Amino acid sequence: MAAESFLAEVREQPDALLRLVERRAEVEAVVEELRRRGVETIRLVGHGSSDAAASYGVYAFGILPGWTAFRDSISLTTYYSADLDFARSAVIAVSQSGRTPDVVSYATRARERGALTVGVTNQPDSELARVAELPLMLHAGEERAVAASKTLFNTFAVLALLAGYAAGRGDEVAAGMERAAEQIRGALPALEAAVAPIATTFAYVGRMYVIGRGIELGTSREIALKLTETCRIAAESVTSTDLSHGPIAALDAMFPVWTIASRDECLPALVAAAELARRAGATLVASGSAANEVRGAEFRLPVPEAPLPVLSPLLSVVPGQLFAAALSRAKGLDADQPVGLTKVTLAQ
Amino acid sequence: MAAESFLAEVREQPDALLRLVERRAEVEAVVEELRRRGVETIRLVGHGSSDAAASYGVYAFGILPGWTAFRDSISLTTYYSADLDFARSAVIAVSQSGRTPDVVSYATRARERGALTVGVTNQPDSELARVAELPLMLHAGEERAVAASKTLFNTFAVLALLAGYAAGRGDEVAAGMERAAEQIRGALPALEAAVAPIATTFAYVGRMYVIGRGIELGTSREIALKLTETCRIAAESVTSTDLSHGPIAALDAMFPVWTIASRDECLPALVAAAELARRAGATLVASGSAANEVRGAEFRLPVPEAPLPVLSPLLSVVPGQLFAAALSRAKGLDADQPVGLTKVTLAQ
Repeated sequence: MAAESFLAEVREQPDALLRLVERRAEVEAVVEELRRRGVETIRLVGHGSSDAAASYGVYAFGILPGWTAFRDSISLTTYYSADLDFARSAVIAVSQSGRTPDVVSYATRARERGALTVGVTNQPDSELARVAELPLMLHAGEERAVAASKTLFNTFAVLALLAGYAAGRGDEVAAGMERAAEQIRGALPALEAAVAPIATTFAYVGRMYVIGRGIELGTSREIALKLTETCRIAAESVTSTDLSHGPIAALDAMFPVWTIASRDECLPALVAAAELARRAGATLVASGSAANEVRGAEFRLPVPEAPLPVLSPLLSVVPGQLFAAALSRAKGLDADQPVGLTKVTLAQ
Repeated sequence: MAAESFLAEVREQPDALLRLVERRAEVEAVVEELRRRGVETIRLVGHGSSDAAASYGVYAFGILPGWTAFRDSISLTTYYSADLDFARSAVIAVSQSGRTPDVVSYATRARERGALTVGVTNQPDSELARVAELPLMLHAGEERAVAASKTLFNTFAVLALLAGYAAGRGDEVAAGMERAAEQIRGALPALEAAVAPIATTFAYVGRMYVIGRGIELGTSREIALKLTETCRIAAESVTSTDLSHGPIAALDAMFPVWTIASRDECLPALVAAAELARRAGATLVASGSAANEVRGAEFRLPVPEAPLPVLSPLLSVVPGQLFAAALSRAKGLDADQPVGLTKVTLAQ
């Protein structure tokens, strides 16, 4: 049956996470090199799921060590040859396959221009691993489905470990991850059962918004991407504040809104945005550790609270992945081989 | 009749631009202060159209003076109170109304933490103008429609002028803008006539992608936002490379794709992405100065080539605005008062 790899790989995520945590000394060594060079600004680049993870990285570095991290423009460097000063920053270039041409080309040029380059990938023998000064492996194991799950999951994790070590709290973050792996393992059966009726209800949906903010912005971007590629939905990630700056006007009863409500400083903004969406007639799905605080949700997919707030996305991404798998099946699609996609995206 | 303000304000853009260019000494003074403080990193913040303009700013600063500019996370500072080092950077906070709470709050905190803060707004007596160390006016004139047009347009322009002066090329950029104002004035009648049949064809469309890259990323984000708010379409901006990392899977014959093809270094990537979308069955609209290079487009909306490539968005945003106005009318909606939106968005 189709879509078995994608779902199997979602279920494997706790194991993949524990594998990475075991190899955390590799992450610590990268951070020691960042420190030695006095780096405190991080340029993150990636496409697709890797770019969603980069959004998470901005928050992990900002919250843990207080470093400025941002998603850098790839095209400024690869197409426009802009004369940027890379000397004071490090690059974290992410490509699960290690072959995304844009990302490899950006890392190559940034290194030539003096940036310390870290190449995050799941493929030790890839171009990215070769061109980056410091290759850093995801240890997610082979991923067969075209739609990424455990490689994205371990990208979240490796960024959190990097930020944790940069803050001198690497061991605490690693211990939190070990606990999170157990929490996810425990939550999977109930979540798989809970997404099935939502998939049936939404089988004919053509568009959705996924709302997250702050630490959950990357999660929201990843879930929207997963729904787009595996379910052929025009799913867009919008922040709770973006919603009222435009998208609210498009909502109606045929427009479901997936909300990621985690117990953190952004929760009030998220709850307020969900209320706006509900009043506009949208059908709400509430996920995350604070799913029960979203009023008027038609469906709820609560997850356990993460051991550290910064690790919330490891838990809150899972219901979205499971829902994508279930909805893809309900629509008769194949999450392992989405239309028009390939595992290694060679488009520039 | 409804939607008269929005369309009238789109038509007023050349005048608004010339008004800003006349006051360019105000922009130059801000750049002198940036230089005096040794700033070469810019943190851009805004929501909605202001955030679309911020995407443009990243390229204007990168291409003209070679400064690193990025769209900063508002929530890291306003919600998470992250301990970021603002001392070496300047903030350009954009809010057309000057009252977006998030943006005002971010500017306040960044200033307290040592950032040089520039407040870009159309309202001299606004909170943003008060809390920013250097207020900088858009001089767009009163904007009555809820959907922004000329304030967004002058935000593009003020960012280009800032980047131009930072590169020592302010007069050249200003002269280019004067010429661009004439080009737009000349192109308006033909563009207004050309968007009408496209609006009729797309009257029942519920979702669209808008593809731009590099210098046109901000344009693409703004056009997608305009279609969302004035036409209730789930319109999403995707870069030419993003397209093949997921969204391509969602395309079919009922899914129009708007492409912004400008004659610059990103054009080959844009043309290749348009070809992928066409093969996936999407109906293509080709806009921009290189619209004729997009093969197989159902509709073409070419604009004149800008006097300087970095000014292309001033021309390429116009067909998208006119199309939004025409489609909004075709759907019986009111672009001046979109459902659920207000001129000043007070959501956090």
